[in-house]
Amino acid sequence: MTTTAFIGLGAMGGPMAAHLARAAEAGGGRTLVWNRTAAKAQAHAAQYGSEAVSLPELAQADILFTCLPTSAEVDAMLGELRPHLRAGMYWVDCTSGHPDAALRQHAALAELGVKFLDAPVSGGTKAAEAGNVTMMFGGAAQDFEAVRPHLAFGGRVVHVGSVGAGFAVKAINNALLAVNLWATGEGLAVLAQGGVNLGAALEVINASSGRSNASENLIPQRVLTRTFPATFALGLLAKDTGIASDLIGQHKSSAPVLAQTAALWRGASRVIDPQEDHTAALKLIEQMNGVTLT
Amino acid sequence: MTTTAFIGLGAMGGPMAAHLARAAEAGGGRTLVWNRTAAKAQAHAAQYGSEAVSLPELAQADILFTCLPTSAEVDAMLGELRPHLRAGMYWVDCTSGHPDAALRQHAALAELGVKFLDAPVSGGTKAAEAGNVTMMFGGAAQDFEAVRPHLAFGGRVVHVGSVGAGFAVKAINNALLAVNLWATGEGLAVLAQGGVNLGAALEVINASSGRSNASENLIPQRVLTRTFPATFALGLLAKDTGIASDLIGQHKSSAPVLAQTAALWRGASRVIDPQEDHTAALKLIEQMNGVTLT
Amino acid sequence: MTTTAFIGLGAMGGPMAAHLARAAEAGGGRTLVWNRTAAKAQAHAAQYGSEAVSLPELAQADILFTCLPTSAEVDAMLGELRPHLRAGMYWVDCTSGHPDAALRQHAALAELGVKFLDAPVSGGTKAAEAGNVTMMFGGAAQDFEAVRPHLAFGGRVVHVGSVGAGFAVKAINNALLAVNLWATGEGLAVLAQGGVNLGAALEVINASSGRSNASENLIPQRVLTRTFPATFALGLLAKDTGIASDLIGQHKSSAPVLAQTAALWRGASRVIDPQEDHTAALKLIEQMNGVTLT
Amino acid sequence: MTTTAFIGLGAMGGPMAAHLARAAEAGGGRTLVWNRTAAKAQAHAAQYGSEAVSLPELAQADILFTCLPTSAEVDAMLGELRPHLRAGMYWVDCTSGHPDAALRQHAALAELGVKFLDAPVSGGTKAAEAGNVTMMFGGAAQDFEAVRPHLAFGGRVVHVGSVGAGFAVKAINNALLAVNLWATGEGLAVLAQGGVNLGAALEVINASSGRSNASENLIPQRVLTRTFPATFALGLLAKDTGIASDLIGQHKSSAPVLAQTAALWRGASRVIDPQEDHTAALKLIEQMNGVTLT
Repeated sequence: MTTTAFIGLGAMGGPMAAHLARAAEAGGGRTLVWNRTAAKAQAHAAQYGSEAVSLPELAQADILFTCLPTSAEVDAMLGELRPHLRAGMYWVDCTSGHPDAALRQHAALAELGVKFLDAPVSGGTKAAEAGNVTMMFGGAAQDFEAVRPHLAFGGRVVHVGSVGAGFAVKAINNALLAVNLWATGEGLAVLAQGGVNLGAALEVINASSGRSNASENLIPQRVLTRTFPATFALGLLAKDTGIASDLIGQHKSSAPVLAQTAALWRGASRVIDPQEDHTAALKLIEQMNGVTLT
Repeated sequence: MTTTAFIGLGAMGGPMAAHLARAAEAGGGRTLVWNRTAAKAQAHAAQYGSEAVSLPELAQADILFTCLPTSAEVDAMLGELRPHLRAGMYWVDCTSGHPDAALRQHAALAELGVKFLDAPVSGGTKAAEAGNVTMMFGGAAQDFEAVRPHLAFGGRVVHVGSVGAGFAVKAINNALLAVNLWATGEGLAVLAQGGVNLGAALEVINASSGRSNASENLIPQRVLTRTFPATFALGLLAKDTGIASDLIGQHKSSAPVLAQTAALWRGASRVIDPQEDHTAALKLIEQMNGVTLT
Repeated sequence: MTTTAFIGLGAMGGPMAAHLARAAEAGGGRTLVWNRTAAKAQAHAAQYGSEAVSLPELAQADILFTCLPTSAEVDAMLGELRPHLRAGMYWVDCTSGHPDAALRQHAALAELGVKFLDAPVSGGTKAAEAGNVTMMFGGAAQDFEAVRPHLAFGGRVVHVGSVGAGFAVKAINNALLAVNLWATGEGLAVLAQGGVNLGAALEVINASSGRSNASENLIPQRVLTRTFPATFALGLLAKDTGIASDLIGQHKSSAPVLAQTAALWRGASRVIDPQEDHTAALKLIEQMNGVTLT
Repeated sequence: MTTTAFIGLGAMGGPMAAHLARAAEAGGGRTLVWNRTAAKAQAHAAQYGSEAVSLPELAQADILFTCLPTSAEVDAMLGELRPHLRAGMYWVDCTSGHPDAALRQHAALAELGVKFLDAPVSGGTKAAEAGNVTMMFGGAAQDFEAVRPHLAFGGRVVHVGSVGAGFAVKAINNALLAVNLWATGEGLAVLAQGGVNLGAALEVINASSGRSNASENLIPQRVLTRTFPATFALGLLAKDTGIASDLIGQHKSSAPVLAQTAALWRGASRVIDPQEDHTAALKLIEQMNGVTLT
């Protein structure tokens, strides 16, 4: 009988916790939930059969999942939970957090006998709802093996290295998203200036060697349609490129393309709007080129 | 009864012309072939049922295809064929050529009553053999429609704009390939410096938003295996990023990431080796970071 | 007795031609002037003792100087003057022109027996008025020696290479100006975000290894004062970085920093205003960083 | 009667401390010196009239200067000196240190009643010997005023902001040095490919708007001569560009040119040699362009 707990019932966390509750119901365990806005937890309990509990009660779970905007919110939760956490439990942080924070949080929890794993997710809300998010784990192999059977919301689940490695891979993944998206925007701006039909250009690029998730999905669905649906904020992707830059600084890496792109995303976040969808960064490319990508 | 002709029986052109010959056999037409190395044409004829002919004879075809290393070789062929070309024929250039050359060649051929279309291909030798290369056409819509039924080696066939637009889209596609490949190499170098397992990292990236053709195919198959099979030369991709840079210059585009990446590829071509496979450019990233991507 | 002629009596050309007229008066020669706006030529003649003449008359000079916005205007003048030019004369083009244009103009003039030298100038209006502009000559050594004694407006006068080399050096000089100015703007934006006093920071930078003409003169005089006096247009400097990019393309150079900076200047020219002073490009850096450089 | 102390008698620190000793002799004070290699301190005392003392004795000075390779060595000294430091004294750190270290060291010393100022220097060994190094101070204004009369080795001495600001300005200065040097190297590589005489090109650039300390001094004296005298190591300048990158990360700045250049310097440090002179970084530009800058 395993008791899981979940903090952070947002667009990703809500459906992820629902999968835990469903599995608990099937398997005889319990799923405890908590949210800074208490009503969200109560609604989740009512809808999915989880239990909305207090933090001290939640801190008695076998596995605690967190899914928050940044590592700063995880630090805050750790402060509140510290007096209550049960030795021997696991804390699996699904936030797109900072590798430095993972090391710090791991050390602080180790003093309490709590095992920390960083396990950011990808796939967006669609995968969260389908219960097959991709998970990249940093931490001890035996801790990974211990929690693995209880990842009811997980699809592809991969152990990528020691503590912090999960966050590192997530940061690099998002930095690559930022590069691919920006570069494809530049390429389309050049073609637009030359009078090329962008839909036709994307059709062939997507059947050719220059294709990426950005060219196949994001730009045709969000940019050429001029909808820019705000599912992943420009400011958050700019933050993630900053985490990648921090990694680059720590390892004294030579990564000129990632470094330049991080700078451009920060600029776009300020010139456009950090709250807009991340694909709206291409509006800065449009301004710098005097074209609209349609 | 259509007579097609094909010049340039290389790794791509050979199997493409074979598909023309097969279609001619089925439909009652003819396929003429020519290669600078005459033995190649004779072998092609023997193996696929095409006809190895002289240039004056070849110049009487209904549709002439060229598939050569660069626009310079196409210019040379145009010079040799000029006295013989039949008014009313079509010249479809499948070279990864230069948009400026397309305009020049189009104008020169128009004086002879020959219609020029730029139609670079993608998909590599696998698609050429399967007869489903992607084709991006620049030229007049009615010329495109006229040749379309005769593209026996084509899969996805798209008309992207006026003369030169095909070459432009191909150059941008290859520039995006260059960016995606280089940036993914940088990202993996950073992760390697942090002790992350690169195979595991690629597995999650390829199930996440940062994926591209580079991360899904090229790097796992050619770089992490250390095989770097020379199917597409580093020097040729550096040339293609140069064509993209020329387009950027002509349109006075602001494309900092494409511009930076073109510079790095030229550097890699000199420091590594222009004859090596294009993926070997990542060896320069390795040198600049003191790691090996395995 | 030498007759000099001058086309293009703008902010630079006007005072340069005045020095020629002064030298002619002292030495017994003549100075002919022409301007697209005829009144400018007449005013120059009245003020400085030059002679406002027709193009056919001007084409009989021993040495013809041109000082125009771009090579396109020089091409236009060459077209108008072609029927009148005197064999054996010298054409010294002080425009910040394009190396390709120099080769083309040199060849066209050689057919008429006219010797062409590209000789762009630097030092700004102050040096033009003082009669000590820096001149960088491209062309044959003996042609350079022939015109050298007649450069009444010249200060440092250097022969840098064959035809086009003067324009090439000028383009690279201006590209370096663009880099130094942009990078110093970035550095000051970072310091401003950290609450550092920018005037004090520039004082020490200008006594240290990071100093440049941009940090010593342009930024303290034009940016920190918020005056941005429009003496050299942002759009013209963006054009010059484009000429440098063309050179990079021709030589297949690997110049990632020059390439990136050219892209950013083109973007700044569009987002800010091509008519503003070149230092106003730093307003884009301000927008991308949420600070004002004061 | 002021007692000054100096730790770190290297190529910069040795002559700086000598100026302190000379001033003490003239004014009736004392100058204490210490070096990790004790013989250096004894030789300094013998030559300049300073006093080689133990760390506990040195810790009784009124003003303690440190001049060490990086902030890590300053941290180590702080650890050793902590039990001995006299409340009320000043610690002036002339290292090219890290702004984060300054904040940390300032806080640690404040607990002991010791006032910390970061005061990196510039001007090289020539200025150290002449006793006119440029100094950029971060710290409280009254602390700056208190130490100001005792800077016998200082020339231009500027208070640029609060604790850490001195290190920040130094890092940005060195980042600008790195940009100007690299970009000028690129520009000269392009000109060399075009057959331009580089000495002549530098002569006109240095009389024009693109000039910088790099073009006026470093490249003609160290690169074109192929001497690359190792006075400031490539690895140390790469470290300084890394400090600038850290500042950029902290302020979430958008500084694409500084970011790219930092990446290229790290790459050059690995591909060439971190022990070579910083100007030897241009050998990577040479490799990437197939030219030698002579």
